[in-house]
Amino acid sequence: MLELTREYLDDLRLKIEEGRDVELAQTLGELHPKDVADIFDSIPGEESLYLYRLLDGETKSEVIAELEEDVREGLLSSLSTREIAEDVIEGLDSDDAADALADLPEAKVEEALRLVEDQETASEVMELLRHEEGTAGALMAVELIKVQEDWTVARAIREIRAQASDVENIYTIYVVDDQGRLNGRLSLKSLLLNASSARSLLRDLKDDDELVSIEVHESEEMVVKLMERYDLVALPVVDSEGILLGRITIDDAVDVIIEDAERDYQLASGISEDVEDKDSVWTLTRARLPWLLIGLGGGIGGAYVIGAFDIENNPELALFIPLIAAMGGNVGVQSSAIVVQGLASANVNMGNLTARLLKELSVGLVNGLICSAIIFLSSVLLGFGWTLSTTVSASLLCVIVFAALFGAFVPLMLDKRDIDPALATGPFITTANDIMGLIIYFSIGSLVANLM
Amino acid sequence: MLELTREYLDDLRLKIEEGRDVELAQTLGELHPKDVADIFDSIPGEESLYLYRLLDGETKSEVIAELEEDVREGLLSSLSTREIAEDVIEGLDSDDAADALADLPEAKVEEALRLVEDQETASEVMELLRHEEGTAGALMAVELIKVQEDWTVARAIREIRAQASDVENIYTIYVVDDQGRLNGRLSLKSLLLNASSARSLLRDLKDDDELVSIEVHESEEMVVKLMERYDLVALPVVDSEGILLGRITIDDAVDVIIEDAERDYQLASGISEDVEDKDSVWTLTRARLPWLLIGLGGGIGGAYVIGAFDIENNPELALFIPLIAAMGGNVGVQSSAIVVQGLASANVNMGNLTARLLKELSVGLVNGLICSAIIFLSSVLLGFGWTLSTTVSASLLCVIVFAALFGAFVPLMLDKRDIDPALATGPFITTANDIMGLIIYFSIGSLVANLM
Repeated sequence: MLELTREYLDDLRLKIEEGRDVELAQTLGELHPKDVADIFDSIPGEESLYLYRLLDGETKSEVIAELEEDVREGLLSSLSTREIAEDVIEGLDSDDAADALADLPEAKVEEALRLVEDQETASEVMELLRHEEGTAGALMAVELIKVQEDWTVARAIREIRAQASDVENIYTIYVVDDQGRLNGRLSLKSLLLNASSARSLLRDLKDDDELVSIEVHESEEMVVKLMERYDLVALPVVDSEGILLGRITIDDAVDVIIEDAERDYQLASGISEDVEDKDSVWTLTRARLPWLLIGLGGGIGGAYVIGAFDIENNPELALFIPLIAAMGGNVGVQSSAIVVQGLASANVNMGNLTARLLKELSVGLVNGLICSAIIFLSSVLLGFGWTLSTTVSASLLCVIVFAALFGAFVPLMLDKRDIDPALATGPFITTANDIMGLIIYFSIGSLVANLM
Repeated sequence: MLELTREYLDDLRLKIEEGRDVELAQTLGELHPKDVADIFDSIPGEESLYLYRLLDGETKSEVIAELEEDVREGLLSSLSTREIAEDVIEGLDSDDAADALADLPEAKVEEALRLVEDQETASEVMELLRHEEGTAGALMAVELIKVQEDWTVARAIREIRAQASDVENIYTIYVVDDQGRLNGRLSLKSLLLNASSARSLLRDLKDDDELVSIEVHESEEMVVKLMERYDLVALPVVDSEGILLGRITIDDAVDVIIEDAERDYQLASGISEDVEDKDSVWTLTRARLPWLLIGLGGGIGGAYVIGAFDIENNPELALFIPLIAAMGGNVGVQSSAIVVQGLASANVNMGNLTARLLKELSVGLVNGLICSAIIFLSSVLLGFGWTLSTTVSASLLCVIVFAALFGAFVPLMLDKRDIDPALATGPFITTANDIMGLIIYFSIGSLVANLM
């Protein structure tokens, strides 16, 4: 794996400046296309374009497939429509081609599609461009190996040879009926093992046990769930009639898994856009500001809650404000995280809302009693006095139980209404629990102050 | 995909009670092994065992491979050593068998291994059990297809037929030299396309371009990185001499990706063990308590910070304690999350520590100035007075800048020392920033109070 150090890149850029093209072409020729793509991701657009023209045809396509989206968009917008026709539409698998074209101006895409020599490829790509993003159709490639169940082994081998040149990795051979409806699969292995019985019919060799497929309009989350669940390397995509349209390969599903995980992680950490630490200061700021603004609003709300209470006559209550606010936030984040993960991986219906909340109530009570006992003892031992210690420990118990229930309830509710429950992890839960915690704390504080 | 509702399970359990074995066997026979495994994951152990004995031999093995770890351990401990020999060691791929055996008592494993008919299989599995968890060796299976470069196509096809019955998915045929050293691969596709030239040597057909492999003692993180980076469905594993030992398939890498993502998510949410919402109340409590205790400690620390300041004469400062604490925590969590994600996906060296911290400083300053301006205006408009508004907005700027730097610095430092940077996300950063935020707030508060 190539380590892209600052020195390596500087050396490369120096060679570009000095125009040492032969040397550069050789250096690039020895790299994996993915490594070349990493270089393009890390240097300015003009220099990437310079290096791109030094690549051979096949590598050009492979590099385009591996570039980051914004870098790829920049590069493609500098290419001629002829280059796009050759390097993108003809050179890439249909799904990667459609991905790459999706961000270009429509007129440019149309011209490039007209320039493609094999008009069948062009229309396949055009077809793929029509699928809505986030569906199985948008992830699938049309390249696959398809045989008919009424063919003999000998004919199948001939046809597969003819089809195979278009397909980079075969994985599975799909068996269809004479209408094109998917009804089985044939492993290369069984074909290899049966190659000697050339006249057997595929109908008798095909495996139709546990054949998993997905309809074209289903979501990419469902794609990932099925592929992960059944350990598939390729998932066939069919239309509502069962006609085989394409297949989704595991590398694309892995990309979706990683993107989803990053997104959930960022939401839980209060980051609202997909950012990386190499993005610009402004992009990073913009991604972080929304949560901070919610936090500010919460903070002002908190000031009102405290202001509504007679703090001047009970200033010692101020001491444990940070504790109460932090614990409410923490417990809420924990509950919501467990629920969100449970919902994401759920294939088992774990019972109804009430049952889940009752469980959360138990966890909250146990945690609350432990924490509240600890804080009572510490606070008395540290000399904060009986009144304050009682107030703090009673409030803490209530705050923990409330935050646990609330943190579990909100994502469950969102999920019921088909809203992404991950939205309820970071900012919303913490801020809401902060304020509620303060209200509980000062209400109990007033009560105790009046009783004493 | 089977939806496991409460009713479905209750119905199944009723049939078990009534001993309607024929009906049960038929129901189970129609399910995908993964669905059967889900049922086992959701019902008591004795009932799983009852259903297990109704499965046919092959399904037994497939179900074992799919069970959750704790459920599988429970089931295996109820099986005889003969059953373990047949259903686990002989029935599963070597990597899954080794996984399943890892949690059983050593004596039981040894006896089961002795009962295995094919002693070569037994010794392969025994060999795999020796690899340390978390390494490439622990993930690999020994089942693969291997040909020698000096063989002809005709011989290769014969040998592949012989080897293929052991290997569920072939994916790639590995080419080795006469010492067993990996030096190329052969796609099934090229074999199929060249099957007619039976006398060509594999040396001339093999593809040794961009052959990616991994050494057996490398980490599973490296496995995932390579497979994701180069879109591999199978990664060959070699020893330090380059001898081919086994291969890791993509389904196992996907499991590692998902586990890692869940772990990072839980750490960021303050959950210290791998838990699911169906775990017991006590497990859930234990996983959540550590962060809460850290939070308690931080809260007591916060009380001391506030106590050290003359709050009785400046009680209005109490109003904005929640705001300052929350904002410090939020900003710290954001910075650390971006750094942790950057480190996890980093294949590009983005420059040194100072450069990264300078960038974080800029982001912190921009966010800080915006938030601080907003809070100053709101606070003045809401009538909190000039003194308090000045104190709060100046403190907020300092707190945000400090928290941004601190949140980025800690995970970067941990990573330099080869400690998992994800440990610095949730509890540690929030608590540290809470306290530091209070110190900054009250120091500025004292300063402003003395100046006025």
